[in-house]
Amino acid sequence: MTLFRAYQEEARYFKYAFNAAGKVVEEAPLIVSPDKGILSRAMDASHIAMAVLEMPWEMFDEYEAPTEEDELIYGLDMEEVTRIVRRARVTDEFTLEAESEDEVIVKLASGGYEREFRLRSIEVEDIPDEPELDYTVEVTVVPDFVQDAVRDADLVSDTVKVGVEDGTFYFKAEGERGVVQPKVREGAEALLSFDAEENVETAYPLDYLKDMIQAAQGAESVIIRLGEDMPLELEFRIGPAGEGRLKFYLAPRVEE
Amino acid sequence: MTLFRAYQEEARYFKYAFNAAGKVVEEAPLIVSPDKGILSRAMDASHIAMAVLEMPWEMFDEYEAPTEEDELIYGLDMEEVTRIVRRARVTDEFTLEAESEDEVIVKLASGGYEREFRLRSIEVEDIPDEPELDYTVEVTVVPDFVQDAVRDADLVSDTVKVGVEDGTFYFKAEGERGVVQPKVREGAEALLSFDAEENVETAYPLDYLKDMIQAAQGAESVIIRLGEDMPLELEFRIGPAGEGRLKFYLAPRVEE
Amino acid sequence: MTLFRAYQEEARYFKYAFNAAGKVVEEAPLIVSPDKGILSRAMDASHIAMAVLEMPWEMFDEYEAPTEEDELIYGLDMEEVTRIVRRARVTDEFTLEAESEDEVIVKLASGGYEREFRLRSIEVEDIPDEPELDYTVEVTVVPDFVQDAVRDADLVSDTVKVGVEDGTFYFKAEGERGVVQPKVREGAEALLSFDAEENVETAYPLDYLKDMIQAAQGAESVIIRLGEDMPLELEFRIGPAGEGRLKFYLAPRVEE
Repeated sequence: MTLFRAYQEEARYFKYAFNAAGKVVEEAPLIVSPDKGILSRAMDASHIAMAVLEMPWEMFDEYEAPTEEDELIYGLDMEEVTRIVRRARVTDEFTLEAESEDEVIVKLASGGYEREFRLRSIEVEDIPDEPELDYTVEVTVVPDFVQDAVRDADLVSDTVKVGVEDGTFYFKAEGERGVVQPKVREGAEALLSFDAEENVETAYPLDYLKDMIQAAQGAESVIIRLGEDMPLELEFRIGPAGEGRLKFYLAPRVEE
Repeated sequence: MTLFRAYQEEARYFKYAFNAAGKVVEEAPLIVSPDKGILSRAMDASHIAMAVLEMPWEMFDEYEAPTEEDELIYGLDMEEVTRIVRRARVTDEFTLEAESEDEVIVKLASGGYEREFRLRSIEVEDIPDEPELDYTVEVTVVPDFVQDAVRDADLVSDTVKVGVEDGTFYFKAEGERGVVQPKVREGAEALLSFDAEENVETAYPLDYLKDMIQAAQGAESVIIRLGEDMPLELEFRIGPAGEGRLKFYLAPRVEE
Repeated sequence: MTLFRAYQEEARYFKYAFNAAGKVVEEAPLIVSPDKGILSRAMDASHIAMAVLEMPWEMFDEYEAPTEEDELIYGLDMEEVTRIVRRARVTDEFTLEAESEDEVIVKLASGGYEREFRLRSIEVEDIPDEPELDYTVEVTVVPDFVQDAVRDADLVSDTVKVGVEDGTFYFKAEGERGVVQPKVREGAEALLSFDAEENVETAYPLDYLKDMIQAAQGAESVIIRLGEDMPLELEFRIGPAGEGRLKFYLAPRVEE
C-alpha cells in the first residue's frame, strides 16, 4: 500500500539540495503533509546551523499525498541520504515514496532500469521551529558568486565576514597570508537583486558555508539575508519553476 | 626481429579490458597463438575469481601472427599492465608486439609521437582451464546498469545477491542502513536479452565485482550468466565488432 | 594610488604558468620594470631548478607601468600564488596590480563579480642571474608530448634521460619493471622544430619535470634545449601571441 508518493522527472532538483542538507545536519525528519507537501527542519549537532527544506506537491510531476488528515513523519539518517543522492544522475527520474511507516523509498530510474533504495526510518528528536528574523539586507546573486566567494575565502581563513557597503555585497576573509575579498556591485549582472536598509558586516564560520553551497549547483539563484550580528540565511530555490526551497540559517561566529 | 605484432587503431578496446583484468588478477600469461590470436587465462591469488581474455587476430587492424607452430607464452605483471593502459588515451593507436621471448612491447601512438613501454616477461604459474558450467540464466544488459548496480550495492554491504525472478533481473544488497535493489524488467530497453530457465539468487563478494565492472566503459554490452549457487560469469565484448571477449568468473560468497 | 597595473582578458595565460612556477620555487621576486614588464627569477630551495618568468607589457590588454625610473620589487610566497591561480577560471579576467610596496593584488573578474586577493609582500633573497648556456640541441614540440613523456617515465623510475639520436627526440626511463621510451621523429607533426648539432643524452630528476609540465596546459608549444651533461631548459610561450615566457632550468641528475 502506498502511503505517499512524489515523482519528478529530473533528479537534479533533489540531488544537490539533499546532498547539501545532509552535509550540514546529521539527521532530519521527513514530514509528509497532506496539503503542504514534503518538509524537513533540523539543526546540526552543535546547534550552529539549521536546514529547512520545503517541497510543495506542485514541484512534483506526479504525486499521491497522504489520505489521512495527519502528517506522516519519518526520520532520515542524512549521511545515508547523501550517499544515495550522490549516486543519482542529474537526468534520472526521481521518486520518493513509502509503503509503511518504517521506511522511506527512493527510486532512481534511467535508460529503462530502476534502482530502489529503502531507508529505515530512525527516531528523530524534537523538530525545531523556523526562526523569524528581521533582516535589514536581502540580496539575490548567481550561484557561482557564492560558490567562488566561499572557496576563495577558504584560502586564508576559517572565518568569513559577509556584508554590504554602499551598494556592494561582499565576502571578506583575512589571514596571515593575505586578504581575500570577493564582491559584486549593484548593477552587475551577477547581483540579481539588492535591498539593504543599512551597511552591515557579520562574521560566520566558513566550514558550514562550504557545506551549504553544495546546493548551489542545482539552483538558479541564491537569496542571502543578513543583519548586524544576526544569523545568515541562505535560500536556494529548487524545482522546475523554483516552487521548492532549501534554506539554511547560520549563527554568527562568536569572537573568542 | 618481430616475433608477433598486433595493431589496432583504437586503444580504447584494450584500455578498459586490461585495466579491469589487471585489478582482478595479479599476474597473467599472454598466450600468442599462431591461429587463435592473443589469449590469457588467470586466477586471482585467493582463487575466487578468474579472468579470461580472448583477442582473436580478426579484432586487429593489422597483425603478424607467430610463424612457428607453437604458441609464444609471456608472463605479465598485471599491475604494470594496468599502469600502462591507464596512460593510454582512448584515441591512441595501440600496438602489442615482441622482438624477443623476454619482453612484451606496448606502443601508444597519437598526434605524431609514439610511446613505447617494454615489459619484462615474468614467470607465470600453471595456466588454469576455463570452467564449463551449465548456467540456467543468461541476460544481456547495457554496461551502465551493471556499473550502477554494483556501485549502488556498495552503499550498504560488501555482498550482493544477483538473481532473476519472473522476468526481472536484479541486484540486491542489504545492510543495517537499508536495502538497495537495482533491477531491470523484461521489455525494458536496458535489458538486451533475457533467458532464464528458473528463478535464481546467489550472493557474490562485491569487491571483485567493483574491479570487474571497470571493463564496462569500453564495452557495448555485458552478458551475465548465473545459476543457483554457481559462479557468476560476466562477459564483455570488445573490439570494433565485438570480436574479442573479456570474461570473468566469480565464485559465490560462502555464508559464514 | 596605483603603483602599477596589468590587465589581461584571459586568466588562462597566468593560471598554468604561475601554478607550475609555484610548484618549483618556494618564493620568488616580482620585479616590475618601467620598460621591460613584469619579471621573476628564482631558484628552488635545493638549487637544482630555476624558474624565469617574463611578462612584457605587450602581453597585457591594458597596463600602467611604474612611473618611477626604478623597478618595484615584491616578494611572493609562491605557495600562496599557486593557491590563488588554482581558483581562477580560464575565462576570468585577470589583473595584477599594487597600491603600495607592501602587497600585491590579484583580481579575477567574471560574470559581473570580482574577486580580490591581497598578498603580503615577503622578503626575498638575492635574485639569481639567468644562466647563459651553449646548448647543442633545440627542439620544439607540442605540449601533449612533454606531458605524456614525463608522466609515462614516472611509471618506472624517478629519473629520466632526455636525448636526441639521429633525428629522433626522446625521453627514456628504465626501472626494474621495464623500459618506457616516448619519442618523436623529425617530420612528425608533434615535432614543430628540430635542431641538433650532435646526439646527446642526459639524465634529469623526474620530480621537477612533473611540476614544470603543469605549465604545458596554457602553452601552444614547448621549446626544449639540451647539451651533453648540461642543464635542461624548458620554455613555454604564454600570452595571446606568445609574447611572454616561462622558462625552467633543471640541473642534470648526478649519478650516485
